[in-house]
Amino acid sequence: MTVLAKSSAELGSESARSLYEKLSVRLKDIGHLKSISGLLQWDQEVMMPPKAAAARAMQSSVLAGLTHEAQTSPVLGSILEELEKRKQTEDLSKVLNPYELANIRIARHRYKEETVLPAELVKACAVLDSEAAGAWAQARKESDYSKFAPYLEEHVKLLRQKASYRLKSGVYEEARKINEKARASLGLKEGEPCYKGYYQALLNTYEAGFKDEQLQVLFNDLKENIVPLIAKIKAKNFQHDNSYIEGDFDVEKQTAFSHRISKEIGFDTEGGRLDVSVHPFTSGIHPSDVRMTTRYTINNFQEGITGTIHETGHSLYEQGRNKEYHDLPISDALSMGVHESQSLLWERMVGLSKPFWEYALPILKEHFQGPSHEKLQTVTPEEYYKAFNRVEPGFIRIEADEVCYPMHIITRYEIEKALVEGDITVAEVPGVWNAKYKEYLGLEVKEDRQGCLQDTHWALGLIGYFPTYTLGSIYAVQIFNAAKEAIPNLDQHIAKGEFHVLKKWLNENIHEQGSLRESGDDLIKDLTGKSLDSKIYVRYLTEKYSEIYDL
Amino acid sequence: MTVLAKSSAELGSESARSLYEKLSVRLKDIGHLKSISGLLQWDQEVMMPPKAAAARAMQSSVLAGLTHEAQTSPVLGSILEELEKRKQTEDLSKVLNPYELANIRIARHRYKEETVLPAELVKACAVLDSEAAGAWAQARKESDYSKFAPYLEEHVKLLRQKASYRLKSGVYEEARKINEKARASLGLKEGEPCYKGYYQALLNTYEAGFKDEQLQVLFNDLKENIVPLIAKIKAKNFQHDNSYIEGDFDVEKQTAFSHRISKEIGFDTEGGRLDVSVHPFTSGIHPSDVRMTTRYTINNFQEGITGTIHETGHSLYEQGRNKEYHDLPISDALSMGVHESQSLLWERMVGLSKPFWEYALPILKEHFQGPSHEKLQTVTPEEYYKAFNRVEPGFIRIEADEVCYPMHIITRYEIEKALVEGDITVAEVPGVWNAKYKEYLGLEVKEDRQGCLQDTHWALGLIGYFPTYTLGSIYAVQIFNAAKEAIPNLDQHIAKGEFHVLKKWLNENIHEQGSLRESGDDLIKDLTGKSLDSKIYVRYLTEKYSEIYDL
Repeated sequence: MTVLAKSSAELGSESARSLYEKLSVRLKDIGHLKSISGLLQWDQEVMMPPKAAAARAMQSSVLAGLTHEAQTSPVLGSILEELEKRKQTEDLSKVLNPYELANIRIARHRYKEETVLPAELVKACAVLDSEAAGAWAQARKESDYSKFAPYLEEHVKLLRQKASYRLKSGVYEEARKINEKARASLGLKEGEPCYKGYYQALLNTYEAGFKDEQLQVLFNDLKENIVPLIAKIKAKNFQHDNSYIEGDFDVEKQTAFSHRISKEIGFDTEGGRLDVSVHPFTSGIHPSDVRMTTRYTINNFQEGITGTIHETGHSLYEQGRNKEYHDLPISDALSMGVHESQSLLWERMVGLSKPFWEYALPILKEHFQGPSHEKLQTVTPEEYYKAFNRVEPGFIRIEADEVCYPMHIITRYEIEKALVEGDITVAEVPGVWNAKYKEYLGLEVKEDRQGCLQDTHWALGLIGYFPTYTLGSIYAVQIFNAAKEAIPNLDQHIAKGEFHVLKKWLNENIHEQGSLRESGDDLIKDLTGKSLDSKIYVRYLTEKYSEIYDL
Repeated sequence: MTVLAKSSAELGSESARSLYEKLSVRLKDIGHLKSISGLLQWDQEVMMPPKAAAARAMQSSVLAGLTHEAQTSPVLGSILEELEKRKQTEDLSKVLNPYELANIRIARHRYKEETVLPAELVKACAVLDSEAAGAWAQARKESDYSKFAPYLEEHVKLLRQKASYRLKSGVYEEARKINEKARASLGLKEGEPCYKGYYQALLNTYEAGFKDEQLQVLFNDLKENIVPLIAKIKAKNFQHDNSYIEGDFDVEKQTAFSHRISKEIGFDTEGGRLDVSVHPFTSGIHPSDVRMTTRYTINNFQEGITGTIHETGHSLYEQGRNKEYHDLPISDALSMGVHESQSLLWERMVGLSKPFWEYALPILKEHFQGPSHEKLQTVTPEEYYKAFNRVEPGFIRIEADEVCYPMHIITRYEIEKALVEGDITVAEVPGVWNAKYKEYLGLEVKEDRQGCLQDTHWALGLIGYFPTYTLGSIYAVQIFNAAKEAIPNLDQHIAKGEFHVLKKWLNENIHEQGSLRESGDDLIKDLTGKSLDSKIYVRYLTEKYSEIYDL
């Protein structure tokens, strides 16, 4: 690790270009350390023998400590400070290109974000995460919310502290303004607590630059339109036959099929791997080393291939990151929502489409022959498409179809925001949750394990994360629409398995753009001329499912 | 990473126990970083996609830099210094146990070893390693020594510098004394070069505390006895039939057989893995995470199982390390030679023995049935044992049998020592090599690629390493003899596959002892009452092969 001995006084005599180069060396070292952390995590999920867990925890903790030291190094701070000063006296865009300027912006944001939190708070959060994870697992098993509630209470307390520090950091301006306005309108004095704007600060950890205000508008519109759509589908009381999706699907054959499809979509196996893990994920250790996982269920074929295509979408983003700026923040994905847009675009816009099954069904039939697949051999792409797109409200988010999914997210969003900002108490969560599932999905939650205890996110302090799933779906539709406009006959390309045209377009317009923009909304605006728009998403769902269910 | 802000002045007021605890925290952090490096290397050999090589090199280099910083931290130096001072004023053995005292001793040695070398020299060595590796591969391919010679020249130069610094470090006393004595006897003045004792310093990097003088005695005795033994066997002009070892051995079945045998020997699959790589190795990431590899050849069954048993021996050492002192230097293997003794003990004393094949042959026959293995199905353990133990002088070290192997090593030892200490030149190496192969093995080397270019060690600056292979064989015989004396009916236990008795004995007497002793010779003396003794090794070879070849 390069240790720059120079003080900030000496930095004053260096050119902006030279300062940038110094910054760049440090950012790359931080990038390498994060790559190593990524490998440790992948290994833990996929390869590590079980007895190694305790030693791995120590290794990860030492590495996290070193990474934190590198990220909060006072020399790094001095370089950033000096570059900030330069902005006042010279036009940096004359010596640095937009990617380099974005590196400085992101580096400054991350530096502030890392340094503003007191070490004790960071430690307390880490301890709570691991304790709460255990408590949550137990509570879910027993379906006993009271066993988890004290940990959620503590999370809310610590997250408020986190948000409060962030508001003071100078890089969460939107959140700070909301809070200031609320305080003024409530006539609060210095020291009197006010948590308004805190959710904005938490949201921006995962979804850079996105406004909670805009999120609220989008989500309200989705509610208004999707709840009646679900009701309409339910009222039809009809399902397409999907018996050929269930049955006895040999795992080796599923594996071969999944590997073939992900490779034909464009996953570069020379710069990545596809393995199996309990929960599918993609680990972007480095654009030249992208490791994804899936899982196969013997009696249901859909899970494995859907998971594979979803993770392939994430992987194409990682493999497509800007080669000029590897290991630098600018080449990172813009936000969780934009990352999810890439997995969902391939999973839903492509993998759940008619043209895709025109391409994939013959390959599937090649892989699965014999007596247990007789029915599969006779099915048409049209029938297969409809069977693959069943809509059926259920309790569990991760099993939800694309129509019901947003309602799972909106429930969580409304509850976690109200919790952090003080509008409901931890004790009220199950009641609020169940009322919303009744209203949005028409379901009576009988047990908290199929209700507010189903997801691990809150146990890990991940508040502000859930909305990115649904932002990802909306981005995906708008991005795919833009791709369709830009690529003549995209549907025909997909039907022939010519995925490279779409991949190339996504590489150029999304992946290589990295974190050049300040928010996903800016990216969409530049790409389509329009802000993120729930109406477009609703139209997509309505048209697709009106045809499938003959509404 | 704990950063101790206290200066050495303040350390003076702390108790020895408290100093030790502070030392221990730092040593454990260093241990964790080394574990991470181990994982990176394992992954690189076994899992990493090819395009990730460049990024991995950067990750490893950043990690190596951080590890070096931790190992040479001035605070670590102050703690060690303060503990050294205490030795003069108080009896540390009253407050610290022998394992803790050994930790201090090893930590001090490593600290001196790391800090005495100038950063530029370390860097120059690293650069040369990677350049020389490429040049060597090319030179070997073309069998053109002249393409490698300049790199070897440079290695000798840098290794002499390394040795020279080490002599000044205060922890290579043996080497320093040899040099001093030689200088005196030659009447050399300050500044006049003298390389005597330098080989001792290099040897001790791999074989802690072992005297080159003793090595020379052992190796001379081996030469005197093994050269005639090889000649005798050759003169017999007879080989046992081993046609059932060659053939068509399905890799999946070999894998199943290897996994079964290594598990029955005692490899804990909950705390380790067995995979495949180009060159078999064992990576002791942590005693709870021991990963070994082997490789399978379809037409020769011996390579896969022998490799597996060899690496299982290494793995049992790693998994058996002292639980009380994980992540601390005392739990590390004592030396490369002692580590090799564990792989060789299982590979040769067990895996090449008659009782072992009484146990393993029925399992082998279970695994390989059908027309291509008809002959295998009829073979007896006695026949199998003899076929497995063919002696046949050849050019290539890694293919050598246990009789010829020491001659390969002695050749390299004599050459590398003469090179470093200035008794031959780099240009003379092929001539000297070929003369020795003629004398020791009766072979005419026709091409340098089957001669002095065959091994990668010198290209990587590994001079002083080769002797540990043969030290390992001698240790193995003496350790196995001690085990036989301690364990009644050991042969019968092996014939029944009851390996746990031997494993337990090795755990207690070798593995858990870690680096408590200062040299392998001390370990053997404590265990058997005798120093390392080439006569015992010669007797083992002579008795075994006199029976096999009816000499």
